[in-house]
Amino acid sequence: MRSDVTHFRCEIEDGIARIALNRPERKNPLTFESYAELRDWFRDLVYADDVHAVVILPNGGNFSSGGDVHEIIGPLTDMTMKELLAFTRMTGDLVKAMLGCGKPIVAAVDGICAGAGAIMAMASDLRIATPEAKVAFLFNRVGLAGCDMGACAILPRIIGQGRAAELLYLGRSMSAAEGHAWGFFNSVTEADTLEGAAMEMAGRIAAGPTFANSMTKTMLAQEWSMSLEQAIEAEAQAQAICMQGKDFRRAYEAFVRKEKPVFEGD
Amino acid sequence: MRSDVTHFRCEIEDGIARIALNRPERKNPLTFESYAELRDWFRDLVYADDVHAVVILPNGGNFSSGGDVHEIIGPLTDMTMKELLAFTRMTGDLVKAMLGCGKPIVAAVDGICAGAGAIMAMASDLRIATPEAKVAFLFNRVGLAGCDMGACAILPRIIGQGRAAELLYLGRSMSAAEGHAWGFFNSVTEADTLEGAAMEMAGRIAAGPTFANSMTKTMLAQEWSMSLEQAIEAEAQAQAICMQGKDFRRAYEAFVRKEKPVFEGD
Amino acid sequence: MRSDVTHFRCEIEDGIARIALNRPERKNPLTFESYAELRDWFRDLVYADDVHAVVILPNGGNFSSGGDVHEIIGPLTDMTMKELLAFTRMTGDLVKAMLGCGKPIVAAVDGICAGAGAIMAMASDLRIATPEAKVAFLFNRVGLAGCDMGACAILPRIIGQGRAAELLYLGRSMSAAEGHAWGFFNSVTEADTLEGAAMEMAGRIAAGPTFANSMTKTMLAQEWSMSLEQAIEAEAQAQAICMQGKDFRRAYEAFVRKEKPVFEGD
Repeated sequence: MRSDVTHFRCEIEDGIARIALNRPERKNPLTFESYAELRDWFRDLVYADDVHAVVILPNGGNFSSGGDVHEIIGPLTDMTMKELLAFTRMTGDLVKAMLGCGKPIVAAVDGICAGAGAIMAMASDLRIATPEAKVAFLFNRVGLAGCDMGACAILPRIIGQGRAAELLYLGRSMSAAEGHAWGFFNSVTEADTLEGAAMEMAGRIAAGPTFANSMTKTMLAQEWSMSLEQAIEAEAQAQAICMQGKDFRRAYEAFVRKEKPVFEGD
Repeated sequence: MRSDVTHFRCEIEDGIARIALNRPERKNPLTFESYAELRDWFRDLVYADDVHAVVILPNGGNFSSGGDVHEIIGPLTDMTMKELLAFTRMTGDLVKAMLGCGKPIVAAVDGICAGAGAIMAMASDLRIATPEAKVAFLFNRVGLAGCDMGACAILPRIIGQGRAAELLYLGRSMSAAEGHAWGFFNSVTEADTLEGAAMEMAGRIAAGPTFANSMTKTMLAQEWSMSLEQAIEAEAQAQAICMQGKDFRRAYEAFVRKEKPVFEGD
Repeated sequence: MRSDVTHFRCEIEDGIARIALNRPERKNPLTFESYAELRDWFRDLVYADDVHAVVILPNGGNFSSGGDVHEIIGPLTDMTMKELLAFTRMTGDLVKAMLGCGKPIVAAVDGICAGAGAIMAMASDLRIATPEAKVAFLFNRVGLAGCDMGACAILPRIIGQGRAAELLYLGRSMSAAEGHAWGFFNSVTEADTLEGAAMEMAGRIAAGPTFANSMTKTMLAQEWSMSLEQAIEAEAQAQAICMQGKDFRRAYEAFVRKEKPVFEGD
């Protein structure tokens, strides 16, 4: 997987890609260029056999301030509807690319995590926060609707419909403690242990059966709006595929030998 | 928006409609007439440009005891199937009208909040309780099923499938503390500050970008059963519409001037 | 309802069926035979008029260790795709049969509750735990995906998408305290009071309007992926059916007499 990116930081090591937005002096805003490059990078990730988990890190004490006021919001106010829709589809495509990339994503959230930054955390699979994390779906504070990049669909399934409605109508920050109690954050840890905690979680995932993990990710998205009967049949097919994988046999043979299985992702 | 209603109280001021059922001596039961009038009033609200949020208040220390035993349950036991279906469709239409009215609704719950009263709280967007609030989806205690006015669909998305199942199978009360911990209530406050807290929340919403808020409400309902891809495309379209609104430009220009934006809802 | 089963324990008394897997010395693993027999038993339950609730009990301090390593996992590693799909469909059919059996199911969870055992708890309507309960959706620890028997669809609706993702990607145990805080468990009680608490809950359900309860169960599953409008219409029809039931009249007449209603389930 390529790590030669321009508008965000990217390091790949031991099957884990660590990425971060890279304008810490501005609290890591997103720009047209970083949206597009992130979208393309997550799309390419589908085909990468050397990355099994992604960690999105803060930079300089903040996760992301979202769409830049000067570089994004200003230009948007002068666009035609055709141009606006091209933009909102591009940002939506970033979420689709994250959901469809086939690798579990762990968001490590510190400081400001706002607007499209909050969406990137929401569109990750797992989330760890520092006590200083402040997550704000602040679209209505810039005159927009809460329905941005999938928020009205995804956020209610993570924290419940009533809490999501509050965050989307008021644009207020969710604290780390609230996010933890509500199921947005899987855990909270101090800033100096945040990257380690996220890497540990990603490492456990990357050491697992990565082909099967990828199927889990596919099905968590795929079953979103299926009936229960459809979901159960879809899982019967998906799991039967995994049962023909070598990792399943490796696990069985390790158990018989009373050893810990070593997975290879096929 | 008209406030000349007969079967409930209604006051409209500063863009906020305050309504309450008005038979406090009976704990504010619903009757055939109040169901129908509430349904019609919420349907008319779609076209109102002078109301941007609704607060549903308790009256005399109770929210609502639900369908009246003598005026509703009694007559229902003698109806034909055609008449029964007309009734259950009318009550369902009240929920549809609340979901579709285009204005965020804050339920301020005190005391008894039972049956159809609990449904009205559930069908609101946000909920505040007093410590004395008791919410009971008590349909099974009157010999009926938990599937009333959308409860089997909506309640699980607010508090989780397992907790909803318990309330619907047992008909037991949910306390204010449970409701807060489970995400049914957004906050809990003492009875003498309840109306103030609800009005403050409604006021913040009404002072926001009300056209965009209305789009948020539409999409929270619209995306209920969409696939993730459908939801993301739907939000791309909905948000592009909002980006052509004047409130978005007002927010941008205020930020540039380092001022707080003043929204006008267009 | 028949209780003459071979691969699990079954006792039926006072309208409540108590079942438990019966190999406590191995922590109650599932086998090909017990899967099939449970599926068939839950399918037959649809037609039983003498059972109104089911309690699934632990045995010997454990709920179930899931699919047996030697009797299930070993053979699966040598199967053709056709055979594997027949197996995953059979396990999925057990969940479908539990969801479709028409009687609320209370899972009483103690000790190990893993793999397909965790799925059986998840597919129940209500869940009570002891402090010693450990629930592990450990599929990825045996080289498989988290999408097993409906887990990627059902678990997120019970505990939220983010927490479910963590359990499914890591295969780690959920403690009783976590499960209670997250809405997986309705309550937690000591081991010596577990069966009593589960029987009390099942007893309250069985003493309720059982035809209406069955409709609640049907609709909780049926509305899973409906739009809000579809769900509200579906409930209008379902509740109108229940309003023609005799239990509704019994409740009304008891209220008029200021007595507690006695339901008969028709």
